[in-house]
Amino acid sequence: MTYTLVLLRHGESEWNAKNLFTGWVDVPLSEAGTAEAKRGGTLLTDAGVLPDVVHTSLLRRAIMTSNLALDAADRHWIPVKRNWRLNERHYGALQGKNKKETLEEYGNEQFMLWRRSYDTPPPEIELGSEYSQDSDPRYADAPVVKTECLKDVLERALPYWDGEIVPDLKAGKTVLVAAHGNSLRAIIKHLDGISDEDIAGLNVPTGIPLLYELDEDLKPVTKGGQYLDPAAAADAIAAVANQGR
Amino acid sequence: MTYTLVLLRHGESEWNAKNLFTGWVDVPLSEAGTAEAKRGGTLLTDAGVLPDVVHTSLLRRAIMTSNLALDAADRHWIPVKRNWRLNERHYGALQGKNKKETLEEYGNEQFMLWRRSYDTPPPEIELGSEYSQDSDPRYADAPVVKTECLKDVLERALPYWDGEIVPDLKAGKTVLVAAHGNSLRAIIKHLDGISDEDIAGLNVPTGIPLLYELDEDLKPVTKGGQYLDPAAAADAIAAVANQGR
Repeated sequence: MTYTLVLLRHGESEWNAKNLFTGWVDVPLSEAGTAEAKRGGTLLTDAGVLPDVVHTSLLRRAIMTSNLALDAADRHWIPVKRNWRLNERHYGALQGKNKKETLEEYGNEQFMLWRRSYDTPPPEIELGSEYSQDSDPRYADAPVVKTECLKDVLERALPYWDGEIVPDLKAGKTVLVAAHGNSLRAIIKHLDGISDEDIAGLNVPTGIPLLYELDEDLKPVTKGGQYLDPAAAADAIAAVANQGR
Repeated sequence: MTYTLVLLRHGESEWNAKNLFTGWVDVPLSEAGTAEAKRGGTLLTDAGVLPDVVHTSLLRRAIMTSNLALDAADRHWIPVKRNWRLNERHYGALQGKNKKETLEEYGNEQFMLWRRSYDTPPPEIELGSEYSQDSDPRYADAPVVKTECLKDVLERALPYWDGEIVPDLKAGKTVLVAAHGNSLRAIIKHLDGISDEDIAGLNVPTGIPLLYELDEDLKPVTKGGQYLDPAAAADAIAAVANQGR
């Protein structure tokens, strides 16, 4: 008896394309991201992986990705659950800023610390400012978040994993989680037992479903899971690794 | 204290455009239907009507309408509930047939009886045939449906109204129901206390949100509710009334 989990990172958003820090700012998919989402659904169909339930964040780039992928896979009718605990990492005061300009302003060491350190969050966002979510009604039941490091993301995602996703898995459902680079890295860190240091080197490509078979203890049968398009995933991961060179 | 309910009929589907009986066949929105759905969301925003929860059928034309309208209204993140009990009327053996050809084959009296009678269903669909849903996994928990009249739709929609929609209303939520011509006519018949005879004359225009304020006994404060674009709704209703002339 194994459990089936599929992780799907949203396709390119309009701010990915503009090279801005996004975090909890609710930007739509770009045209390329829309195509990625639909292709993600086709990959599910081709692999015979049929989600029975989907969990998403409260951000439209993950919600649209889930809607488009499930429609392409003819699974648009499955139950949906959404929660802020699956949101992207809150990028604090960097939300809305250009990545290149931020790198030039603060230097490479500080920049990489904010982007990749496990436990150093960016500076806090000012409440009430343009890219803060403190008055957004969708977060009425959530604490006010001003910034997050990956450790914070893991700590707020785990209660949702344990309380909502694990019960669906244990009920024998094929579970799709449509979310973000950092909320998915947090779940993968937890599943694969990746150290605080090694998680810095893990990147999740956009739009390519990542399939995990989990054993009775919810440990991956194959560490790292299996991308439904392994060649495209390897290319995307290599491209990220080469960005800094 | 009043409760707020919004009914939204999906926009034009590809089979509406081709003049085919659709029923439970799961066709997508046409390009015009996609635009209608987005405009429905804009009408919600303009009226300041902000749904807290959405209920849809299991058919993609209602699901897509809900997704597009809620995204346009910046309410894409609200909880979603889906159920076959909100599906369009099952059109039996007529599903997939051209309406004009059916009219010519069976004559106007029989044709209008199938389309508008409260309690006369079309002939049953043959199980296993191209446009039957008997082996569709989304209906695994539903009874096998072979045909329906409006009375059948009302009888299967009411348990969902009472069990799922009313509790959301009584919790003070603004409830959006994104569904179909006949499942919405069934709900409206129930709400407004319309007779079995008079319901034949009621048409719900596509893509225009219909707002009901309900009193403590869940009776409409204004019978028939209020369309968020009354002029467009009146035009669409007049156009249907004139079709037979």
